[in-house]
Formats: sequence, structure tokens, C-alpha cells
Amino acid sequence: MKKVLLLPILLVILLYTTAFSQLNLMPIPAHYQLENGKFRIDTTFEISIKGNPNDRIYSAATRMLRQLSRRTGIYFHQDYITKASNSNSTKLQVMCKEPGLLKLDENESYTLTISPRQITLEAENDLGALHGFQTLLQLVSTDSLGYYFPAIFIKDKPRFPWRGLLIDVSRHFEPVNVIKRNLDGMAALKMNVFHWHLTDDQGFRVQSKIFPKLTELGSDGKFYTQAQIKEIIKYASDRGIRVVPEFDIPGHSTSWLVAYPNLASAPGPYKVQRGFGVFDPTFDPTNEKTYKFFDKFFGEMAKLFPDEYVHIGGDENNGKQWRANPKIQEFMKKHNMSNVHELQTYFNKRILQILTKYHKKMIGWDEILQPNMPKSIVIQSWRGIASMVKAAKEGYKSILSSGYYLDQMQSAGKYYAVDPLPSNTPLTDTEKKDILGGEAAMWGEMVTPENIDSRIWPRTAAIAERLWSPQNVKDVNDMYRKLRVVNLYLDELGLTQIKNYGMMLRRMTNGQNIAPLKELVNLVEPVKGYERYNHGITYTSYYPYTHVVDAARPESIHARDFNIMVSDYIGGKKEDYKILKSKLEKWQKSSVELKPIIKHSPILWEADSLNTEYQLTTKAGLEALGNLHNNVEVDSNWINSEIITIEKWRKPFANVNLEIVDAVKELIEAEKIKKN
Amino acid sequence: MKKVLLLPILLVILLYTTAFSQLNLMPIPAHYQLENGKFRIDTTFEISIKGNPNDRIYSAATRMLRQLSRRTGIYFHQDYITKASNSNSTKLQVMCKEPGLLKLDENESYTLTISPRQITLEAENDLGALHGFQTLLQLVSTDSLGYYFPAIFIKDKPRFPWRGLLIDVSRHFEPVNVIKRNLDGMAALKMNVFHWHLTDDQGFRVQSKIFPKLTELGSDGKFYTQAQIKEIIKYASDRGIRVVPEFDIPGHSTSWLVAYPNLASAPGPYKVQRGFGVFDPTFDPTNEKTYKFFDKFFGEMAKLFPDEYVHIGGDENNGKQWRANPKIQEFMKKHNMSNVHELQTYFNKRILQILTKYHKKMIGWDEILQPNMPKSIVIQSWRGIASMVKAAKEGYKSILSSGYYLDQMQSAGKYYAVDPLPSNTPLTDTEKKDILGGEAAMWGEMVTPENIDSRIWPRTAAIAERLWSPQNVKDVNDMYRKLRVVNLYLDELGLTQIKNYGMMLRRMTNGQNIAPLKELVNLVEPVKGYERYNHGITYTSYYPYTHVVDAARPESIHARDFNIMVSDYIGGKKEDYKILKSKLEKWQKSSVELKPIIKHSPILWEADSLNTEYQLTTKAGLEALGNLHNNVEVDSNWINSEIITIEKWRKPFANVNLEIVDAVKELIEAEKIKKN
Repeated sequence: MKKVLLLPILLVILLYTTAFSQLNLMPIPAHYQLENGKFRIDTTFEISIKGNPNDRIYSAATRMLRQLSRRTGIYFHQDYITKASNSNSTKLQVMCKEPGLLKLDENESYTLTISPRQITLEAENDLGALHGFQTLLQLVSTDSLGYYFPAIFIKDKPRFPWRGLLIDVSRHFEPVNVIKRNLDGMAALKMNVFHWHLTDDQGFRVQSKIFPKLTELGSDGKFYTQAQIKEIIKYASDRGIRVVPEFDIPGHSTSWLVAYPNLASAPGPYKVQRGFGVFDPTFDPTNEKTYKFFDKFFGEMAKLFPDEYVHIGGDENNGKQWRANPKIQEFMKKHNMSNVHELQTYFNKRILQILTKYHKKMIGWDEILQPNMPKSIVIQSWRGIASMVKAAKEGYKSILSSGYYLDQMQSAGKYYAVDPLPSNTPLTDTEKKDILGGEAAMWGEMVTPENIDSRIWPRTAAIAERLWSPQNVKDVNDMYRKLRVVNLYLDELGLTQIKNYGMMLRRMTNGQNIAPLKELVNLVEPVKGYERYNHGITYTSYYPYTHVVDAARPESIHARDFNIMVSDYIGGKKEDYKILKSKLEKWQKSSVELKPIIKHSPILWEADSLNTEYQLTTKAGLEALGNLHNNVEVDSNWINSEIITIEKWRKPFANVNLEIVDAVKELIEAEKIKKN
Repeated sequence: MKKVLLLPILLVILLYTTAFSQLNLMPIPAHYQLENGKFRIDTTFEISIKGNPNDRIYSAATRMLRQLSRRTGIYFHQDYITKASNSNSTKLQVMCKEPGLLKLDENESYTLTISPRQITLEAENDLGALHGFQTLLQLVSTDSLGYYFPAIFIKDKPRFPWRGLLIDVSRHFEPVNVIKRNLDGMAALKMNVFHWHLTDDQGFRVQSKIFPKLTELGSDGKFYTQAQIKEIIKYASDRGIRVVPEFDIPGHSTSWLVAYPNLASAPGPYKVQRGFGVFDPTFDPTNEKTYKFFDKFFGEMAKLFPDEYVHIGGDENNGKQWRANPKIQEFMKKHNMSNVHELQTYFNKRILQILTKYHKKMIGWDEILQPNMPKSIVIQSWRGIASMVKAAKEGYKSILSSGYYLDQMQSAGKYYAVDPLPSNTPLTDTEKKDILGGEAAMWGEMVTPENIDSRIWPRTAAIAERLWSPQNVKDVNDMYRKLRVVNLYLDELGLTQIKNYGMMLRRMTNGQNIAPLKELVNLVEPVKGYERYNHGITYTSYYPYTHVVDAARPESIHARDFNIMVSDYIGGKKEDYKILKSKLEKWQKSSVELKPIIKHSPILWEADSLNTEYQLTTKAGLEALGNLHNNVEVDSNWINSEIITIEKWRKPFANVNLEIVDAVKELIEAEKIKKN
């Protein structure tokens, strides 16, 4: 084991730049070294497990074997892996010293050694071994003799101990199977915290047996029973994933107050919110009944959720109800509180007392970082990395979500560039230790069970790599190369980002040929940030998220490929001409074929202008490409008028943008201008 | 309402042959009449529900509205439909007289009247109304103004009261979400009985709190908790579907006897079976402990499963353990039993006493039909329609599954032709009343959660229509036309027969282009019946069902289309030449492109000969088509040698058959022979 620790930095860099491109490992391990030789995968491949691991390792090993079998079609002799599977002669030897505990800072390291005849996987505990299984599955390769693992030595451990995914199930409810398949995706990418945003203005999603009215009145019947919660926690635990529940208080709490208006800061009655935004209903922090309620509630939830952390939200409390309520104002005066933030801190401290009583630690959004909060809390930074730095400077532990908001529809490359601890961090080494990691955040306003996976994956894999791999892993192009492989891998696991894309296009075309629509939608991306709210529709939880924008992927890999190829071509890589030409011709053709399809499918009428933009843009691109290829000189007026036409049509139609417009403009502008 | 009853038969026939082709209703209603005009679907579409229905109607109406919204993209004003939604001014008025009871022979009729300004849906109870909702969803149409429902009058009711789907979850476990999505499919096709084959030699899948060892030792951890069972029963009930559990005894019971070997007819110990077939382990019917066990067990299950019927299996008891056990032989002598069938009847009667005590009725496979069984039992006929006729002649109620075995991989047309009560039935009118209906049976040996939907759907829709629609509905081509529409409709609902087909091909090609493989697999079908068992592999529950045969659809619609077109062309429809040529050329091209893809994907190596067959067959087809088109006369030896080549390669490769071979042979044989 010491061997690798002594590897010169130079060799590591070399690996990243050369042998590297042969591997699809995501996230990239902390250290690895490719060796000569191949381990052949055949029917005799068998797994033994030794040591003293948690039982989760047996089902995980069996799942791994079956997944390998499904992928390769190889009919392994071994069926179920149990404690009895501990022979010395099997080809994969797994050794774990002790049972893994699902808690912050647990050792997740593993060492994987593949030689042509033997594989060994060593880990302190089963959590590390589970990561090793995922690495092994990503190493499956083929050659003319069949399937094999390359000989390799890997010594791996995560950079950050908190690598999370938040799923908001309040704005849109996500059934059990949606959560399960996303846990499978997380495990594949070595993520270890599922942050379950269970309550918000639009729905209260967890059954309370003490306060059944919470779901009876606050969920529209869409909630998880306690049996289902346990089922999901078990499923996560089986995959080495902690489950941190979020109960967002004192704001974002309309759905609670529907059932218990007497705990609100204004009289009510309240109705479950259907729309989105920041709403007024807020718990009354000056009412002792509020704390009696929370004492019972968190007592119940503390038993249901085994993780040591409970997330109390705490964000976006607008304070309106507090300022409007004379009793609350009086309370603030009496306690010398000069603003609502101080009142919220008072509330948070009272909640912290309750959580502490039930042996839970508190985590909350960065609003909870106020003077006088104890250092035991964890801050989740969403408003900017500055608040994370501030928290660390003040001695708080924190995690980063700012820059990882999946609902903002940014590119994988953009998320990949966000580092909780960039090389220029102003933090000292001691302060750095309080940066626990980060979380991708899938806010649920615009996502449904049909398209949520496509908003989470594969982009979250880039965040997973950022949080696991060493800081110097920064090759964006290689990340994108691997993202394609990961995307197919997730498809096999049951994630629906590819499957439901097809279904949504089929539904829109209503039995017609989907190919032309697919060509177009492959090249668009939803408008970024929260721009979609600005186009006249008041969205609600029952809006039909089945339009072009809802099917479109957050990032168009097809456009990215084209755009890079155009840059290369203009930069001198003339051999790409034919490919570019055939792409543009195919798109031209599809834009024509799409016209009658749109005509016969009213849900697509909104895409008519988009198709015109597509048609004009690809036409102009084809002409410019032809001119470039044939060295035709053109009039500068011609160039200007082409640009004007393209710009005129360059708009978000149907809430999406055509992502090849810049590249086509580059082609046009690269044309030679005729000398007068 | 009387109007339609007076419709002359002639008009009904006319509708089936003309206006008919405009509608995609499946199953076809008992009576309908298209009217002039269109009901426009817009944001003001709203639903009111009146009368005294069961609460399930509100969630069903809300689901219907949301599905309509997802399909059309229309953002309806109405959100949730509740008891308060009972205004006189809404456009869809639903009226139910009373709450529907989920039991045999409950009234499921409905009357749907769509006029340009108003829709009324009248039913005795909510079960009929739910069927009406499904009909309405299938009527969504488009024109140049948008979405509409055609004006129509429908008076509908099922032909048979028992329209079931059996899913075997023992040979392969099927998770909760697989069951749920199939219940959605059933509801869409107006099926009303989910027959849950919960136990067999390969796994005991239902939690018993009294006998927890049943799942602890007999399920490999793959079973439904009682909470999940309740969840599924609720889900089914919400969709108007009864759940009939099957506990297969006294044979097919290895998984029980793993936990309770003392109840077996031979000493044990027993292990959960991994392979398939008929096994020896059988409950001891002479041991009073057996009945004490079943008394407690069925007491528990009777509470868990609300349906009045419990299925006791009873099939394929080979009697070996009974004949080999001297104590059992002695018992038989003592009770004057001359064979094991009589002993099984004794067992069945004892079980029937227990079920009766818990107010349950018994259903079983046709083996339970033995002299002296009381007439209260229901016989499920699987060995042939003769046993059903026999049962009816003897005064038993029965349902048909013979001819509806989905695992036999027959065509939809073949299942469609199977009628429990064909026009030539030897039964009297009184006897006919005991024919309750039928069940499609999805036996689970070769299906996994990945491909089970593709084995059930869309073929089961043909069976659903057979069991719902009038006997004279027999237009196979029209059934196939609608099957395409239904297939897309089920895709929207979450069924995976299209989605996972793509995934399985992607996994096999391992990141390469899947299009050429898809062209080929589109044209093949798995070997029929149980032929797959005859090719040297001993299949088990952990075999990787991820090969070409597992992805291939049971019926190739692409081949069917081609074959019909070839017949038409040879019959004189010359204008199809171009389409046939382009199809054959496309296939030729794909067979060439597929070669390197197969080479780089070891799981596809088994398809190499299949691809050669594909290449040779399409090449021969192209040549023959060219000769026919150009009136080229060919040598008879040439024809013979072509046929010989094709026949030489005509084999099930990789357990599939290329389904265009006959049509290509037709083309070759249609060529003109040169006169000597």
C-alpha cells in the first residue's frame, strides 16, 4: 500500500494526460496506476468476503455480480453472496476490517488491486468496499477475446466527506421508485448524502402518526408513509448513503399551517400553495405551543430518521407576518430584538434545544448563520460561496450548494468549475477542515417524476467528481467524454433521462415519426436560471410539464459537439468539413420534415417559430460552410444580412434556446470578404 | 338511452367497417354511435361529480384530468377534483348512483355522451365511471384548431365479468413499481382482476407476521411487506381492479418448505429452487399440523387480501413424495383413495373448509376439478379449453387461461382468436353463464423487471378486448392498427416495453451506434412456446436475461408490416415497390454496419450468424424484388439455389427467428422462370 503513496506527482500527472483517456472512471480515484495485463471475466468469476463488515456488503456484492452479468451476458456460477462466501480460492477477494457506520467523516477509502489472475479489494469497512465495487463495474472493458478488467492499482478516498444530492419532493411529489433509482445513481457516483426536502409551502410529504393532520390536510394525498420512509432509508443505507431529512421552518411552512393554523403568526386559514415563490405563512416563534408541537414532532422524526443530522431549512423567511403581528412585535421589544433575524435566531436556538434533546445535530440554510448561534450547527450555503467562507471563518462547519442548483439548467462544465475549496480560497488550513463538501440541489418546481432524472443526470456526475476527486482534476473535456459513458451506465441502472426523453417526444408527436423533432430538441436547451417565470405563465404544481422545454435536456451535448467542431474547423481542422456538412444537411432536412408534424400536433404549435429559427440558422450555416470550403469570397453586406436574419430569429421560443447559433455565426463571420 | 338499443345490427356492422377506423378505442365498446360535431378541449374543461360514488372516483378523475393535460399540454384551471366539484355548469358531468364494490359481477357499465358543448358520463357506480374516463382519454383527437373529443354516444359494458392478468412474482421478483405500472396498464384496457402469483418453488413473496420464516428463509430477501401489499391493493382498488392472491399448494411449494420442512411429505431439508420445472416437494396432506398451519396462515392472509377469492393453485403436483411415503400410502388405503388425485381432493376440501371459515371462496387451476368438489369453487383452465367446457358442463364456474399464456411468445392475433365462448361452443345458455372470463398469464421464468412489460404489453390489450368487447368483434387488422396506438398510450403511462427495449440495445452495443442492431432486432421474435429450454442452457432465476432474445419483442410488427406488404405486392399492388425496396436496402445496409458493432460487443457475438442470415435474406429479397419489378426472367435453378441458401441459414440463432424469411421466399418464388 505504501507503494502508491510514494508515487511521484509527475507520474500522476502523466496518467491524467495519457493512459487516462482509456478509463471511464467517474469520479477519478485519488491515486491509481495502470499495470500491464488483463483480468478475464468469465463464468468462474466469484466473490469472497472476509473480515467483519456490515451486512450491507453481501447484498451490494450480489447486486454488483448481477449487474456485471446483465452487462456482459455472462452466466456466473455464483448466485447469492453470503457470509458463507469466504473461500480463499475465489477470484475477487474482499476484505473489510469493520462494519461501516453511516455518519459524517466515516472512513470511505478502499484499495483495489487487479492483476490478471486475482482481484483484491481492501477497505477499512464496507462503505469503502461498496465504492470499490462501483469502481470495478466502471472498469469493465472489451477486446477481441471478450470482457476483462484492466490490471490496475487504485488507492482511493474522497476529498470531501459530504457529497450530497437534495431532492425537493414538496413542489412536486416524487414517488418511492423515483427516489430509489436516484439513490442507485448516487451510489454509482460515490455520493453519500441524500438530502430529502420533505416539507414546503406546496406539500407536507412525511407521515406523522402523532400529527396525522399534517398529511391529511397538507399533502393532497401525496406523501410517504413511515413504512415507505423506512424502506427508502434502508435502500439508501444498503448503498452507503445517509438520509438527511429537511423540515423547512419557520418560513416555507404553509403546508404545516393548513393543519395547524393556530401555530402561525397570522390567523389563517391556510391553503396548500399551488404556485411558487416566497410566501408569508410562518410559524409563530413567540408561541410556546409552537415549541410543544415541535418537541413532539421532532421526537417522532428523530426515531424515524437515524442520521445524526436534521435539516431545519430556515431560508427565505420574509418576516411579513412577524412584523404585522403586534404580539410578536411586543415580544421582540421585550427581548431587545431589533430585527426579525434576531427573532429567527431565537427560534432556531429553541429548535436546536429540541434537536439536541433527541441527540440530533442541526443543519440549515445560510440564513441560520446569525450571531450567537452555537458552533455545533452546519451551514448549507446557497446564496454564494462567500457565506460559506464567512461560516468557516467564524468556526462553523459548512457545505456548498451555491453553484450546484440543478434547476438553474447550467452546463455540467459550469457546475464542474465550482469548487468548495478552490486553490485561491482565503481559508486557512484549519478553517478548510470545516468545509465538509457540497450538495447538488434539485428544486422541484418545474420537475415531475417524468423528467426529474433528466435534470439530475448526468450533470450531477460532474458535481460528484468535483466532490470526490483531487482538487487538480480539472480536465473539462475529459469530464464530458466520461459523462457520455456515465449517462449510458445510469440508463442501465433504471434512471430515465434517456428513456423518458423518447417517451415525451413520442407523446408530443402523437404517433407521428419522432425523428425530426428529436433532431431539433437535441440542439436546444431550456432557458437558464429562472427566466422561464418571465414569460406570462403563472406556473403551479399542476401545470403540464410535458412541453418541448420539459423534454429538452438542460445541456445539449449535440450542440456542444457541433460547436467544438466548428471552432476546430475554423481553426484549421479542414477534415471535419464532411461531418459538419452532413450534420447541417440532416438538420435542414429535419426542419422541413418537422413542419407537417408540428401542424398535426397542437402541443407543438409553440415550437413553430423555433423550427423556423432552426431552418434559417442551419441554412445559413450550410451556405457559409460551403463558401468556406470552396474559398468563395462573399460580399460584406451579405454577411451582415445573414447575421441580422439570424439575430432576428434568435429568441427563446417555447422557453428553449437553439444552441448552435453562435457556431453558425462563427462560420458566417469566418467567410472571406470580397475586395471591392 | 333506449335509442341505441334499437340500433339495427346493420348499422353496427357499418360502424365497424367505416367510421370505425377513425377511432382508437380498445376495447371496442359494446355499442356506440358517432355523431356530428366536436367537443373542443380547452383550459375551461372542468369535471363535476354527482351522486353517491365511492371516493376512488375523485382521485381517478383528477388523474384523468392530469393525463389529458400532460398529453395535450393544456393548462386546465381545475386542479384537484373533490366532493366539492359538483357544479351544474362544468363541461363534464359525471353521475354515479352508488359506490362500486370490488367483487365479481359488479355492474361495470357506463354511458358516455359527448356533444359539442357538454359531456355526460352516467354509471351505476364509480367502477363504470372509471371505464368511461378511460374511453374518454382514448377519444382525444386533433385537427387544425387543436384538441377535441368527437361527438359520440357510447353505451358500454363488459362481455365477461372476470378480465384478469396473472403476474408470477416468484420465479423473478417484481418490485412494487413494476406491479403498479402494470395496474395502470390494466386499468387503461378495462381489465379488472390482478391475479398475483405470490408463491412458488423459487420464492415466497408475501410477508407473514405469524410465520416470518416463510420470507426470511424462502425469499432471498425479495418479498412484499404487508405494508406494500396494502399499498398495491389500494392502488388497484383506486383503479377498479380486484386483487386475487395465489398461494400455490400442495405442490409448487418448495419455498414454503424451506422454512417448514416438517410439513413436507419427505424429510428435507429444502432449498429455494433456482431452476425451473416441476419439483417434488409437496405439503403432507395427511399431517394435521399442515392444516393447523394453513388455518393460521389463511386467517392472516384473509385479513390482508380483501377480495372474496383466494387462489390455491393446485397445479402440477407430481405426487412423487406422496407415493414414496409409506405413512401417506397407508393413509390413502385407510381412506379408500385409489390415486394421488383423490388425496389432493381431500387436501383441497380441507383447505376449502379453512377458506370458508374466513369467508373466502376458492379458485384453483384445473387440476382441482375432481369428483366431489363442491360447486362453489372456480376453475382456472390452463391445460385446454376442454377442461373449461368440462367444468361448465359439471356446473362449475370457470375462467380461461389456456391460450392466453404470454410466456409462450405467441402473436397478439393468436391470443385474440381465443374466445372463452366461441360461437361454436358446446355449452347451453345456462352453462355459458358460468364462464366468467379469462386471464392473460405472465409466467416469470424468463422475465425480469426490465423486460416484463414487453412480454405483457401491448399483446395483453388484444386479450383485454376479447374479454370486454362483443363476440363479433373480430377484425384482426383493425386490432393491430389500434395496438400501435395503445402501445404508445401505455408508454406514456409508464410502462417500459418501448423504453427498456432501447436501453437493452444500448447496453448490448456498449456505447456504439444502436441503429443497425435495432433494425435487425425489430425483425426478430423469440422462439415460441418453451423451445428456448431446448438449447443447452439450464436457466435459473439468476441467468442474465439481457441477451438479444430478451430484448426482442414477442411479436415483430415491423416484420408483420413487411410480410403483408409483400403479399399485397405479389398480389398486384405494384405501388408498394419503392417502399419494399427502401426497406430491404435499409436492412442490407444495417447488416453491414452491424458487423463491426457485433465484433466490439462480446454479448452480441451469439448474433453473428443471425446477422449473416439477415444479410443473405435481405440480399436475396432485394434481388428478387428487382427482378419482379423489371420483369426479368430467371433460371429455375437460380430460384432453387436461392431458396436452398435461405433455408440453410433459417435457424433460431441466439434463440430468435428472423420473421421476414417467408416473405422473402414468396418474392423469390414469384419470379418469372425463363423458358428453356
